[in-house]
Amino acid sequence: MSGSTFGTKFKITTWGESHGTGVGVVIDGCPAGLALCEADIQKYLDRRKPGQSRYSTPRREEDAVEIQSGIFEGRTTGTPISMVVYNKNQRSSDYSEIASYYRPGHADYTFDAKYGFRDYRGGGRSSARETIGRVAAGAAAAKLLGMLDIRFLTYVKSIGPVSIDASRFDAVQINENPLYMPDAAAASKAQAYLDECMRAQDSSGGVVECVISGVPAGIGEPVFDKLDAQLAKAVFSIGAVKGFEVGDGFEAARARGRDHNDAFYYDENGRLRKKTNHAGGILGGISDGTDIIFRAAFKPTPSISAQQHTVSRSGENITVNIKGRHDPVIVPRAVVVVEAMAALTLADLMLENLGTKVESLPASRY
Amino acid sequence: MSGSTFGTKFKITTWGESHGTGVGVVIDGCPAGLALCEADIQKYLDRRKPGQSRYSTPRREEDAVEIQSGIFEGRTTGTPISMVVYNKNQRSSDYSEIASYYRPGHADYTFDAKYGFRDYRGGGRSSARETIGRVAAGAAAAKLLGMLDIRFLTYVKSIGPVSIDASRFDAVQINENPLYMPDAAAASKAQAYLDECMRAQDSSGGVVECVISGVPAGIGEPVFDKLDAQLAKAVFSIGAVKGFEVGDGFEAARARGRDHNDAFYYDENGRLRKKTNHAGGILGGISDGTDIIFRAAFKPTPSISAQQHTVSRSGENITVNIKGRHDPVIVPRAVVVVEAMAALTLADLMLENLGTKVESLPASRY
Amino acid sequence: MSGSTFGTKFKITTWGESHGTGVGVVIDGCPAGLALCEADIQKYLDRRKPGQSRYSTPRREEDAVEIQSGIFEGRTTGTPISMVVYNKNQRSSDYSEIASYYRPGHADYTFDAKYGFRDYRGGGRSSARETIGRVAAGAAAAKLLGMLDIRFLTYVKSIGPVSIDASRFDAVQINENPLYMPDAAAASKAQAYLDECMRAQDSSGGVVECVISGVPAGIGEPVFDKLDAQLAKAVFSIGAVKGFEVGDGFEAARARGRDHNDAFYYDENGRLRKKTNHAGGILGGISDGTDIIFRAAFKPTPSISAQQHTVSRSGENITVNIKGRHDPVIVPRAVVVVEAMAALTLADLMLENLGTKVESLPASRY
Amino acid sequence: MSGSTFGTKFKITTWGESHGTGVGVVIDGCPAGLALCEADIQKYLDRRKPGQSRYSTPRREEDAVEIQSGIFEGRTTGTPISMVVYNKNQRSSDYSEIASYYRPGHADYTFDAKYGFRDYRGGGRSSARETIGRVAAGAAAAKLLGMLDIRFLTYVKSIGPVSIDASRFDAVQINENPLYMPDAAAASKAQAYLDECMRAQDSSGGVVECVISGVPAGIGEPVFDKLDAQLAKAVFSIGAVKGFEVGDGFEAARARGRDHNDAFYYDENGRLRKKTNHAGGILGGISDGTDIIFRAAFKPTPSISAQQHTVSRSGENITVNIKGRHDPVIVPRAVVVVEAMAALTLADLMLENLGTKVESLPASRY
Repeated sequence: MSGSTFGTKFKITTWGESHGTGVGVVIDGCPAGLALCEADIQKYLDRRKPGQSRYSTPRREEDAVEIQSGIFEGRTTGTPISMVVYNKNQRSSDYSEIASYYRPGHADYTFDAKYGFRDYRGGGRSSARETIGRVAAGAAAAKLLGMLDIRFLTYVKSIGPVSIDASRFDAVQINENPLYMPDAAAASKAQAYLDECMRAQDSSGGVVECVISGVPAGIGEPVFDKLDAQLAKAVFSIGAVKGFEVGDGFEAARARGRDHNDAFYYDENGRLRKKTNHAGGILGGISDGTDIIFRAAFKPTPSISAQQHTVSRSGENITVNIKGRHDPVIVPRAVVVVEAMAALTLADLMLENLGTKVESLPASRY
Repeated sequence: MSGSTFGTKFKITTWGESHGTGVGVVIDGCPAGLALCEADIQKYLDRRKPGQSRYSTPRREEDAVEIQSGIFEGRTTGTPISMVVYNKNQRSSDYSEIASYYRPGHADYTFDAKYGFRDYRGGGRSSARETIGRVAAGAAAAKLLGMLDIRFLTYVKSIGPVSIDASRFDAVQINENPLYMPDAAAASKAQAYLDECMRAQDSSGGVVECVISGVPAGIGEPVFDKLDAQLAKAVFSIGAVKGFEVGDGFEAARARGRDHNDAFYYDENGRLRKKTNHAGGILGGISDGTDIIFRAAFKPTPSISAQQHTVSRSGENITVNIKGRHDPVIVPRAVVVVEAMAALTLADLMLENLGTKVESLPASRY
Repeated sequence: MSGSTFGTKFKITTWGESHGTGVGVVIDGCPAGLALCEADIQKYLDRRKPGQSRYSTPRREEDAVEIQSGIFEGRTTGTPISMVVYNKNQRSSDYSEIASYYRPGHADYTFDAKYGFRDYRGGGRSSARETIGRVAAGAAAAKLLGMLDIRFLTYVKSIGPVSIDASRFDAVQINENPLYMPDAAAASKAQAYLDECMRAQDSSGGVVECVISGVPAGIGEPVFDKLDAQLAKAVFSIGAVKGFEVGDGFEAARARGRDHNDAFYYDENGRLRKKTNHAGGILGGISDGTDIIFRAAFKPTPSISAQQHTVSRSGENITVNIKGRHDPVIVPRAVVVVEAMAALTLADLMLENLGTKVESLPASRY
Repeated sequence: MSGSTFGTKFKITTWGESHGTGVGVVIDGCPAGLALCEADIQKYLDRRKPGQSRYSTPRREEDAVEIQSGIFEGRTTGTPISMVVYNKNQRSSDYSEIASYYRPGHADYTFDAKYGFRDYRGGGRSSARETIGRVAAGAAAAKLLGMLDIRFLTYVKSIGPVSIDASRFDAVQINENPLYMPDAAAASKAQAYLDECMRAQDSSGGVVECVISGVPAGIGEPVFDKLDAQLAKAVFSIGAVKGFEVGDGFEAARARGRDHNDAFYYDENGRLRKKTNHAGGILGGISDGTDIIFRAAFKPTPSISAQQHTVSRSGENITVNIKGRHDPVIVPRAVVVVEAMAALTLADLMLENLGTKVESLPASRY
């Protein structure tokens, strides 16, 4: 119960609340011998750090990671890697008011319904700080996958009504604007849109897209543990995600087979390729050796300053204005969380795939 | 490995290929004392049976289920329920040709890449017949949930470009047309569209929608095993699914917080309700007591008669016309598969939720 | 719930009761490409067949296995292998009486306490026929391990007070006497002892020993999933087992460190060896490359003809004489069940061990 | 991989090495609302603390626990409980020598064989300090079980050749002597024996016994997840355990059915009882409502000062004298570890048992 463990072979367990001692993660099953240090992890955590632009909360969170176990002389030992980020900037008083009512769009009510009460300080376990454990573990998974030449390109595809234009796609731009959009013009427009949202005490949703290159064919287990099914679960487990699609996604539902099927061919080097990639790199739940492409839809940040109708725990219909300054959009900070979940899923399924064929089990292996 | 087990408490394991002895499922963890018989299961299986209209393959498959264990004197005993549907209508010769090449849009290539070879007869394990085990188990899960007053309404929302019109929604219509659409006018239009697809030796995708009523608040585990995350995995594990969304789904990415947040209120009976349901009944991954609503996007049937480019296993670029008569659309037959996966997910998470509170553990319980 | 699944990578799920349609097993995760046929399985099942001597029940059970999926052209495909043995010799009338009371030493009462009622025919799910699924799956695991040069030698070490004499140990004898004892003299004495038990309408316990050779060093996961811990669970899950020990076992509790520690040395070929094997081939829960040795203690068959005191379901203290002819000892037939559980455990942990080191993950693997 | 997670519903993951930052545990699945504080945990940890008598290592380890998450206003919230004990008394220099060779009876060689290298400081992950996480989590499990009136009585039954005498059994004595033996005379004899072992630079094994009262009938899952099988795994996962038995254990193998079967009867209050308890409270893997009794055999501490033969990592046969002062016996300190593992197993299976019957699933539950 409580569902804080993810993965089977590369297995992680996260813990921690917004206003407790800290948030952390234990990785069990990382192969031994991987060079890994705190800087590898920190690099990822810094991508989700708040306070980096006017579109994210001005809270200063240091989010400095400490590795507590599982590394010896700079390499993973194969035993559990415990990592922690201590909470530093919590002011519980900011949140005491929300103890008495249920914020619309938040998990306040559902936690109470499930557990009978909740740690209401800053959202407790349902706080976005929970994702720190995912990102720290995802950084380790990504490092492992990097050794196998697997790369992630993750970015914001749209903010509210503003989408990137495929013809202007420029990966370099992703780190050039605070919205992580690979299209400078769209990023400008999106910033204008967000400024307007902020003026209206409102917030915006958006879409994150992830492209994974270098995944060999054969990853993903048939039937229930398909690569796309596991990615769907992984990404949908991020708070605020309301939609997930692979390849053409919902567009495929409007398509015809003749257009949607990707034709195979052998290139001049005899390597199997596809003329198109409507499938998003996955066929029958198993990677086909081409780029894996998926998108996640995020709802607007539920915390807004505008007045809202809701209820108190004590049984009254009330109106509230949620205090504090909130991210008008969480999508840019979610980019690295999406990437982390994808890396964790892939690392797990690549380890799961070992031993699939008898001939990969020579006695000499052991 | 091989991923044929789903669920933790209400756990199922499916087996079988298109052209083997049969397809089956073992349910481990169904509570004891549930009245269950073959007719309960058959009712569900009949909803996915082919040959019921001109839009599904004319193969006659009886798909008669046999319960082999776990039932005594008409009730479940709490021990594994094994169910089998023997294959009867297989003609392996129909499929021998496809042994030599990879059908576009199918799992032929990826199975070969993963395992080194494949049972090519009728798709083997990646055949849609694999879903029989899911549907049989889902029927048992749905019966269990029915005792708790949980109901499913599942239907086709769109076929290709033809969508139902919300203003004409009529649940009665679902079983009145071969496309399971709750809008007679849309069903007519969709049939015309499919007729045209067939003439063009082409196929169509579509969207299935599912509404689950009666789910109490509190179901779903925080963090990784959220109700929506588990539904996403469950539904995405169905072959041909390319997108999944809950509540407003991808539309939420274009929305603003003020519009998207569902306001809580207490009704005249003091019961907590929501003015809207953009969330689709799930907040923070936990059910909020309102209807759970989700959609799945299906790609067009990859088997089409039209000529396609592909490759042979022996290294040549070739063109193929896939013989036999194929479903121009699988969406109508997928309705019950989606419902089955939702029922399995919910049964599992409802059992998982037991014991969440200490006060639900009186010594006298045991 | 209901606990009928064993293993993580080489995962099996068993089903079936003594008097239902049959008993079966689904293996999920057997590597693809293993040559496997019904004869491989039948050979193991025949070792547990009753009716082979006067010390086992005279019921004739054919126990012919059918493989229903997962094999194509004589090799495993990597997808689930379903196997079934249909029940043929059930006469429910023999057992109807036991519906009304609880047999001492049996699971009748505990099943009722757990589930509210039970399938009382022949013990239902708690019947020894349940082990057929284990043995069938164990045969497949043993075949896989045989390819890696791992061999099992399993036999009866003692029956009641009669133990084999280490100085007379002769592996050839195991298949020469109905008690599977590797010592002809002990086997004779044990038969005389059992004859006397039968005359007294009584039964006997005994000890099974298993020696596994060829296991490379490094198998077993630290902490909770140690090789010896998993073997302990596997073997203790066999009905009637009351004790399990590895290497010197309980004798080690009386020993001193100087005598118990096994000294390492390099032999003339530079291969690491141990001068003794008090540890039974496992150090810190991980195989050390020497023979793995363990023992299981079985209680006497609880079904005896002698009069016994017990209770009826309806609340009376009664005496019973359990009708029918029963095995005076189950230990000989349990030999292959113990071996099967050991093979399943080892196959699972050897697959689990893949990917333990980063250097075993070359990109080219995939 | 790496096996540091135990349990399904009451699930724990431990981490940490002897000489890293600390050792810790995350509990996921503890029901919400349990009053739990650091003192509850510390009480258990203090029972395994070294330095309490001349029979345990004179290292002073504070082992003060910190709860880092999952508790709010003194009660568990249902979300992960992270606990840590920081390492304080590590002097890595003490251990640097053992980097170069394999200590007999330790996991040095097997960790190297598995992972390619090891954290050799103080045994790293295979250090007995790893059990701190188990004991901390076990304390929480025991508190939960205590609310359901389940009690543990755990003690040393024998040290080397010295066993307690059943006729002198006195539970009060357990906390009156440093060996936790419930028999003052045996404790004296055992101390004399240990003094002699120490003079001989040697060590001793022993047996721990555990009696669990108050467990209702019906706990444990049939087939593979039997209560005794799970206890066997749990206890065998403790380093140095070489044997495990329930009830009469290995003695049952020498017994006859007539003597071994426990007769049922109804007492004057109509409550079902047993005249004897040879079964140790478990029938068919399910608790029968009587005391659960099991024993674990521990091997002698492998670290002894006497000279031993072994090998260096660099390929030489050598002799070593392991420096430092070592526990001549670990059995007394293992008592609480055994109890912790039993509590964890039982808490998990009691939660697993919820929902076993349909009638325990009223809609109103949710």
